[in-house]
Amino acid sequence: MGGNIATNAGGIKVVRYGLTRDWIAGLKVVTGRGDVLELNNALIKNATGYDLRHLFIGSEGTLGFITEATIRLAPPPPEMRVLVMAVSGLDAVMKIFAEFKTKTSLVAFEMFSDKALKKVLKNTGLPAPLESQADFYVLAEVEAGNEQEEERALKVFESSLEHGWILDGVISQSEAQAATFWRYREDISESLAPFSPYKNDIAVTISKVPPFMQDLDKVLAKAYPTWEVIWFGHIGDGNLHINILRPDGMTKEDFVKECRQVDVLVFETVQKYKGTISAEHGVGLTKKSFLSYTRSPAEIDLMTGIKKVFDPDMIMNPGKVLN
Amino acid sequence: MGGNIATNAGGIKVVRYGLTRDWIAGLKVVTGRGDVLELNNALIKNATGYDLRHLFIGSEGTLGFITEATIRLAPPPPEMRVLVMAVSGLDAVMKIFAEFKTKTSLVAFEMFSDKALKKVLKNTGLPAPLESQADFYVLAEVEAGNEQEEERALKVFESSLEHGWILDGVISQSEAQAATFWRYREDISESLAPFSPYKNDIAVTISKVPPFMQDLDKVLAKAYPTWEVIWFGHIGDGNLHINILRPDGMTKEDFVKECRQVDVLVFETVQKYKGTISAEHGVGLTKKSFLSYTRSPAEIDLMTGIKKVFDPDMIMNPGKVLN
Repeated sequence: MGGNIATNAGGIKVVRYGLTRDWIAGLKVVTGRGDVLELNNALIKNATGYDLRHLFIGSEGTLGFITEATIRLAPPPPEMRVLVMAVSGLDAVMKIFAEFKTKTSLVAFEMFSDKALKKVLKNTGLPAPLESQADFYVLAEVEAGNEQEEERALKVFESSLEHGWILDGVISQSEAQAATFWRYREDISESLAPFSPYKNDIAVTISKVPPFMQDLDKVLAKAYPTWEVIWFGHIGDGNLHINILRPDGMTKEDFVKECRQVDVLVFETVQKYKGTISAEHGVGLTKKSFLSYTRSPAEIDLMTGIKKVFDPDMIMNPGKVLN
Repeated sequence: MGGNIATNAGGIKVVRYGLTRDWIAGLKVVTGRGDVLELNNALIKNATGYDLRHLFIGSEGTLGFITEATIRLAPPPPEMRVLVMAVSGLDAVMKIFAEFKTKTSLVAFEMFSDKALKKVLKNTGLPAPLESQADFYVLAEVEAGNEQEEERALKVFESSLEHGWILDGVISQSEAQAATFWRYREDISESLAPFSPYKNDIAVTISKVPPFMQDLDKVLAKAYPTWEVIWFGHIGDGNLHINILRPDGMTKEDFVKECRQVDVLVFETVQKYKGTISAEHGVGLTKKSFLSYTRSPAEIDLMTGIKKVFDPDMIMNPGKVLN
């Protein structure tokens, strides 16, 4: 049920992670009523009523099938530099981000904890990126197509060191090295897989990230005093993937049951900051009962109304997202 | 009725002309049912069901009022160069565009006819931009923040001359000159206003622009053998604004009546190329009866269904866009 072809990211990760919805130029869909619709026909501009294309993006197959998508081409990215930096604490992360975001051509800004890094090192056999150790690391990717851009990135790196936000760091000197640095972040999910982690995919707006992370840290420390809780995510988009690892000897069923109770506390924190309980991964079955932490009753009611317009017999991906 | 706050441009004019829908980070709206909705809360990523924000963008007030919009900030643009070029003919326009689009950091690509230019010169008192005269001109704006970018722009300009696509051209040497060059394009609407023009705002995808313009040229030459027909537009987005000037002594009523008959021929041509009868300006009252040239009966029916979900008593901007 290919409804979820793109999240509504409007962020900074176009080059690295793929598409935002503006790149979807056209969709061919079949609705639950049986209509075949050619939506937007790849036009760059079109102001003729409701843009149904954008309704289908992220609908998770609940309005109809997407049978064809026309996607814009992007120009090839310029040369990049990747930096891996040990940070002085959670509160420094967004200060470093602001510095890079305003003073360099930032393409990606990622965060991961030392616990995540240790799992990656063990699983992949990679050497540690830095001699120093810290509770948290950030990875920044910046455009470096010319000398000015390179200089700016170096300057921001140095000023972050001077401020004490960064304890240590490295800058890639080649494409191969940049690719290796990315593995410290990108190999996390694979390295955690053997522990059948319970995954969270939450986000708030950038300005709310520091107090949100503080609150979340307290909630999780209290909820899981002995379990392994792994932090990482696209922090430049305000997006965190908190993974809880299953303790040895606990059944999957018991584990998930317990995690879903903690979810309530996590999602209450998300709601407090007007965040989202699903930044990238959608709602599906698992998050359906939690939808009201991000969407209001009126919104859910209107969504159900829209669903009935496109799929009056409720046959498209039944039971997902909405009741 | 502030429904139409942004077109769905995904094109190349972000810096010059404003917003695409990805820049609308959040909306506060009041629906026809009286719900107050806070849509997306300025989140960069959010995958929790249908994105109602995108349904409101371009809805022209027919679903509810938009009472608040949160808009992302863009980084300040780099230095720009503006080129004004006399082209050898309509068929050269998109060849020049392809050259600039693939080889420079193109920000805007505009077209206007000699008839449009003459009206601007007369109205503004500006000197002609070029010594040579041609039936059509293009204006290109390219990023020139560093030497490489400048060189690339110059190279493309020279190769377009060598190919014979361009007959003559100038490149701005200062910000003031760039601003003046833009006036040849941006002052067109104001310069035509005294002639109470009948305006078209049509678009097709880029690849279809050359045959579309040829067809359109024939249609308009036949329909308006003696009237003044002025071509200009954001041709880099496939978007043309054809303005018909009212002949001396004709009443506004008779003029509009006649133009609307020709609209049918223009819109049949648009439909042949799967284009849009309204790229930027919306549907409103004037284009409501022509909506089916761009949207299928099924789409219009689904749009009406959506309208009824948000506005069951049909009180929001009644009679606009849909019946």
